[in-house]
Amino acid sequence: MKFKLQAEDKLSKARAGELETARGTIQTPIFMPVGTAGTVKAVHQHELVQDIKAQIILGNTYHLYLRPGLDVLRQAGGLHAFNGWTKPILTDSGGYQVYSLADARKIREEGVTFRSHIDGSKHLFTPENVMDTQRVIGADIIMAFDECTPYPCDYAYAKRSLDMTHRWLKRCCDRFDSTEPLYGFDQTLFPIVQGSVYKDLRQQSAEVIASFEREGNAIGGLSVGEPAEEMYAMTEVVCGILPHDKPRYLMGVGTPVNILENIALGIDMFDCVMPTRNARNGMLFTRNGIINIRNKKWEYDFSPIDAESDLLADRVYSKSYLRHLIRSKEILGAQIASLHNLNFYLWLVGEARKHILAGTFYEWKQKMVKQLDQRL
Amino acid sequence: MKFKLQAEDKLSKARAGELETARGTIQTPIFMPVGTAGTVKAVHQHELVQDIKAQIILGNTYHLYLRPGLDVLRQAGGLHAFNGWTKPILTDSGGYQVYSLADARKIREEGVTFRSHIDGSKHLFTPENVMDTQRVIGADIIMAFDECTPYPCDYAYAKRSLDMTHRWLKRCCDRFDSTEPLYGFDQTLFPIVQGSVYKDLRQQSAEVIASFEREGNAIGGLSVGEPAEEMYAMTEVVCGILPHDKPRYLMGVGTPVNILENIALGIDMFDCVMPTRNARNGMLFTRNGIINIRNKKWEYDFSPIDAESDLLADRVYSKSYLRHLIRSKEILGAQIASLHNLNFYLWLVGEARKHILAGTFYEWKQKMVKQLDQRL
Repeated sequence: MKFKLQAEDKLSKARAGELETARGTIQTPIFMPVGTAGTVKAVHQHELVQDIKAQIILGNTYHLYLRPGLDVLRQAGGLHAFNGWTKPILTDSGGYQVYSLADARKIREEGVTFRSHIDGSKHLFTPENVMDTQRVIGADIIMAFDECTPYPCDYAYAKRSLDMTHRWLKRCCDRFDSTEPLYGFDQTLFPIVQGSVYKDLRQQSAEVIASFEREGNAIGGLSVGEPAEEMYAMTEVVCGILPHDKPRYLMGVGTPVNILENIALGIDMFDCVMPTRNARNGMLFTRNGIINIRNKKWEYDFSPIDAESDLLADRVYSKSYLRHLIRSKEILGAQIASLHNLNFYLWLVGEARKHILAGTFYEWKQKMVKQLDQRL
Repeated sequence: MKFKLQAEDKLSKARAGELETARGTIQTPIFMPVGTAGTVKAVHQHELVQDIKAQIILGNTYHLYLRPGLDVLRQAGGLHAFNGWTKPILTDSGGYQVYSLADARKIREEGVTFRSHIDGSKHLFTPENVMDTQRVIGADIIMAFDECTPYPCDYAYAKRSLDMTHRWLKRCCDRFDSTEPLYGFDQTLFPIVQGSVYKDLRQQSAEVIASFEREGNAIGGLSVGEPAEEMYAMTEVVCGILPHDKPRYLMGVGTPVNILENIALGIDMFDCVMPTRNARNGMLFTRNGIINIRNKKWEYDFSPIDAESDLLADRVYSKSYLRHLIRSKEILGAQIASLHNLNFYLWLVGEARKHILAGTFYEWKQKMVKQLDQRL
């Protein structure tokens, strides 16, 4: 994997770059749609490529491990062969879902035991087997197995957890480096900075993570309930320490404003379920602000969802029609709103990139963040 | 509306024809995907046109009347303007849903009172207001308001109900003929033959319906639980009486075998929720038989859903992947399976048409009905 910085903003830490992988080049900053169980919910793979112009998607190790399971994925030839997506895939390590979804989880030095939220079966995730699992999935970018601390989290717990996450990282790297990529494509491992909302822990973690000298680095444990200002403060500290010449991925973030502010702090890669999950509830993100399409206000609005969009669905379906579909719990409503929101997120990071390359990012960002949070 | 018969099968009553409407020509025999609440569930309008090649879709008056409601549809300029579907739409009269979905319904000579299954609100459907409602929806083909008797149904009830349905038809025609089409497109009214599974009642009804000399005629009250043989017997009786030079629409039918057998008896138009509803549960119809994609059998089958299909989704997604999606209740599973089944239904009636035109229908039909019901 090769990362090439193409431009840096003068008034912020924003950067534009290109990340070359065996399955194609990713132009950063980038947003990665979340394909939880091998599918970006309500969206066809060809729509991701042709309509939304996604360059990389996520898979969730926890979900894929439970269903369809590793035997199916291995025999299919990996997730790419299984779901027909040919561009890069990044998988999380499963940690976050184990902490948030699974039952009866116990965190020990060895790893985490938990029960499946689907059938109650018992499982153990360790730094080693999670590396193996992501190899089997065939992810292009593999994430280290960490503990993602909740918010709030007391200092003593955050410190203890962080030390274990660092020990786990050593085990992840040892396992990763002693195993081979599968299916004929390179795989790379990103470590994850933790440390809750404590500046000194984040500093310490960023230094440890940087010392591993991997091809890219991630920041986890943010966007878990803390105020946005605390998130930005942590990103700023960490980006000041993580290597300048390697991609930085902020996990699970966030709103359109969060994304622009974190790009300004030096983040290159983002993922979040928000565009798809909120779409299914009728929340649309637009360049002018947020639409709750369920509101009475849109009942007689027969104008297109977005007449100037490059997305067909935005031009051919009206707000009134989409409101009807979402209120009637029609699947097509989830399809249209998901396409819209993902297309908007990809448009947003694409515009950010253009402005970084043109040297006009900061001004544009300042204007946009005022609009994006408005309720329309 | 003009109906032109193009060919008739020598060994059966099958016919191929063309139905010209103000919104385009329909090649018969045809299957009409059901777009209950203004959407064919889980399928985009452009997919209906380009992928499935649907020529006409259905709307359900009961659903559309309740939601989005007539004020929205009127201000939108009708259902076509509302949902962006530009080809013909046929609406049922709402009777079937009132009988099967609504609460506290009471059938009187005047009409039917019922409570909405959504919010419990009270409503009255009469032959007159149902004509007005379908005018407002902007349906190209409007169905008469009838009573669809359940199965089984005793003779006395079936007879009484039939007489009322005939009196209601007179009222439908009077209202329809004294009102104007809306939105600049012609609308036409199809009456409906009832009579449960009683041959003499069906005969009598077909004669009454024929005497109204409308531009097309329908058969209702079948596929409500009766054995297929009884359905075919009724279709045969009725097709012998309904005008030869006008299209015949068999409502709510059915399985692929039901469709071929009824084409052989002289039916030109079909609709059914089966391809979409069963798709969402993982039942796939194919030329070789029926697949329950949830079965363990398909877990490691990485072959395309149908490698020879003209449908992209059939070629790019594997059986194993679709099984995973359906079992995981992923929306994309409903999308793929719905596309597959609808494409298959449209393929089936298209092939039937080709064989009628080529003079090879009967032989082909006999071969197909042996395959189509097999469990794969």
